[in-house]
Amino acid sequence: MGLPHSERLTSRHRRVRDVLAARGLDALIVTTPLNIRYLTNHVGTAGVALLTPTSVHLLVDFRYLEAVRLVQASACACPALRVREVKTSYDETLVEAIAELRATGTSTPGFEAAHMTVARHGWLRQALETRGVGVELQAVERAVEQVRLVKDDTEVSVLRRAAQGLSEVAGEAFASVRPGVTERALAGRIEEALRAAGYERAAFETIVAAGPNAALPHHRPTDRALAQGDLVVLDFGGVLDGYCSDLTRTVSVGVPAADARRLHAAVLEAQAAAIESVAPGVSAPAVDAAARAVLGAHGLAEAFGHGTGHGLGLDVHEEPRIGVPRPGTSPAQLEPGMVLTVEPGVYVPGVGGVRIEDDVLVTDDGCEVLTAVPRELLELG
Amino acid sequence: MGLPHSERLTSRHRRVRDVLAARGLDALIVTTPLNIRYLTNHVGTAGVALLTPTSVHLLVDFRYLEAVRLVQASACACPALRVREVKTSYDETLVEAIAELRATGTSTPGFEAAHMTVARHGWLRQALETRGVGVELQAVERAVEQVRLVKDDTEVSVLRRAAQGLSEVAGEAFASVRPGVTERALAGRIEEALRAAGYERAAFETIVAAGPNAALPHHRPTDRALAQGDLVVLDFGGVLDGYCSDLTRTVSVGVPAADARRLHAAVLEAQAAAIESVAPGVSAPAVDAAARAVLGAHGLAEAFGHGTGHGLGLDVHEEPRIGVPRPGTSPAQLEPGMVLTVEPGVYVPGVGGVRIEDDVLVTDDGCEVLTAVPRELLELG
Repeated sequence: MGLPHSERLTSRHRRVRDVLAARGLDALIVTTPLNIRYLTNHVGTAGVALLTPTSVHLLVDFRYLEAVRLVQASACACPALRVREVKTSYDETLVEAIAELRATGTSTPGFEAAHMTVARHGWLRQALETRGVGVELQAVERAVEQVRLVKDDTEVSVLRRAAQGLSEVAGEAFASVRPGVTERALAGRIEEALRAAGYERAAFETIVAAGPNAALPHHRPTDRALAQGDLVVLDFGGVLDGYCSDLTRTVSVGVPAADARRLHAAVLEAQAAAIESVAPGVSAPAVDAAARAVLGAHGLAEAFGHGTGHGLGLDVHEEPRIGVPRPGTSPAQLEPGMVLTVEPGVYVPGVGGVRIEDDVLVTDDGCEVLTAVPRELLELG
Repeated sequence: MGLPHSERLTSRHRRVRDVLAARGLDALIVTTPLNIRYLTNHVGTAGVALLTPTSVHLLVDFRYLEAVRLVQASACACPALRVREVKTSYDETLVEAIAELRATGTSTPGFEAAHMTVARHGWLRQALETRGVGVELQAVERAVEQVRLVKDDTEVSVLRRAAQGLSEVAGEAFASVRPGVTERALAGRIEEALRAAGYERAAFETIVAAGPNAALPHHRPTDRALAQGDLVVLDFGGVLDGYCSDLTRTVSVGVPAADARRLHAAVLEAQAAAIESVAPGVSAPAVDAAARAVLGAHGLAEAFGHGTGHGLGLDVHEEPRIGVPRPGTSPAQLEPGMVLTVEPGVYVPGVGGVRIEDDVLVTDDGCEVLTAVPRELLELG
């Protein structure tokens, strides 16, 4: 597994500590698994990290001790890591770690309020009070996410490879499109191709939606067989060294109807306009508006019911959100190093749908499209 | 997709309302996706349900409207469902729904404290206060999980099929074990076999851990090639109609060393003792203790660092937890209709490991093993 080297982690720790300092905090309880991975290279599904001014405590149970030891013996070792084995429960061990920190002067730890549950927070608060630790946990949002938003060089290089590898997978997918193949079989073929192309796993459940099913943006593959004239939405991606890729193409089984051609052309035009608009300093809603304006001009505003895209990284849906601004929130401004999807779509109940999606890196003077698969309406089968 | 019929949902609604009434509540905000599915047959990844004394409100956005409409037009329609389209945000729509309920007399809704985040709860509380709705959200835990713990006949029948189907997959896996095959390729072969056997997807990331890697209970498959004499832990499962199966076998590549045979025999004996102990009225920790006693007698107590098993259902890890009792918690008592895994294991760093796992249904007078794959140490390749 290609984990980032130690010096990358040092830089991430520094950036997160800067964010904490700006909010008056001297430590952070990290419970979000991808944030734990980002800061420590621990890839297990369980764990808690505690970032302090001088170290990173990693709480793991028996199942992960050996894996952590192996990473720590490599060039990808997490700097200043202190491993604490969890014997009873993660939260008991966390309270012990906080109490010990308190004794050494660290007094205002934040916790990830957008991840920690009300029940867990209640238990921790109660336990700290009962034991007289004298620490009040501070709700924090986006401390690590804010740093993850702009990818470092290692991440950009992995994301580029993850996106480029989808060309091979798309080729396999296109070669399997023909009348009679079921959505489910085609999804299976795509997931085999992802693995054959070297991905660790699918980044999300592969979507194959044919004919009227294509009107359901989050359709799950069924036993419906592809038929002549169907539009087929293929939405898939793979995880490479922990990073996600995400691509959608809409193809035709045989010759498409004139209506289908028009829908596809409108979405393609909308996507091109949105990609064209991506540049540093542009607001995320402006990218969404670019796609929306084109579809509106084609009379398809109502048929485009979701946002234009999302950030891409360790998580398949992360910041920034590319959509209509939400009341009371300040929209993200694009910066070089952000990676996002651009994926407008139109959906006509009972008829079908079209979505076209690429992965895009914001560069110093515009953007680079990372995925490299033809976008025109292919007639297959 | 084989969803449960409407009358099943009616019965689930009634059971959850009984739990709520016993806690002085008249409604429940359901945010846990599997609980939403359990109560409404909505299988999307987004959604919020609000169970009231007479209806179920389902909040979904544009992407899922058509899918919900199709379910509602079928024999699996959710009774008394009211669909609310989310236009701005889920939480805005939820506040509107709560305000409307309040106006009709429903006043004490619970929320799922073990799922809702501190940030989300803070936002909702603030919004309800700002709008003068006069409702205080009540933290609730395990309201739906408690009902899900005992499976109804439809669920038992799906879980039985899901477990039995693993025989075919195990056969494919065993046939692919030979020197030179990489862990990753073998995991890929297993996931293809899962799909070929009719599963929707893998229930979790397939584990293939060979030789020294078998000492890592949650190892992810690597490019390590299997070698003569390796013990190989194969841990996999599939999702069928939403329900999970989970099986582990440890096999030998060629003739195993005497030590490997001894480890395998000890784990097999521990697993048999644990399965033997499963019956209604027995506490979950007693099942764990049965396995632990056998491994202790073999001098392997320290090498068995995890619990003996977990409940199985819509989630691959659900209640009851089969392990050493946690301080301050009251352990589950087994009841007919519970389904659980029994999976003791031993792990020797640098050497290897053994785990053997089956899925078990608690019956009126003991238990039924649902998985049907030979457990002896197979010599393959």
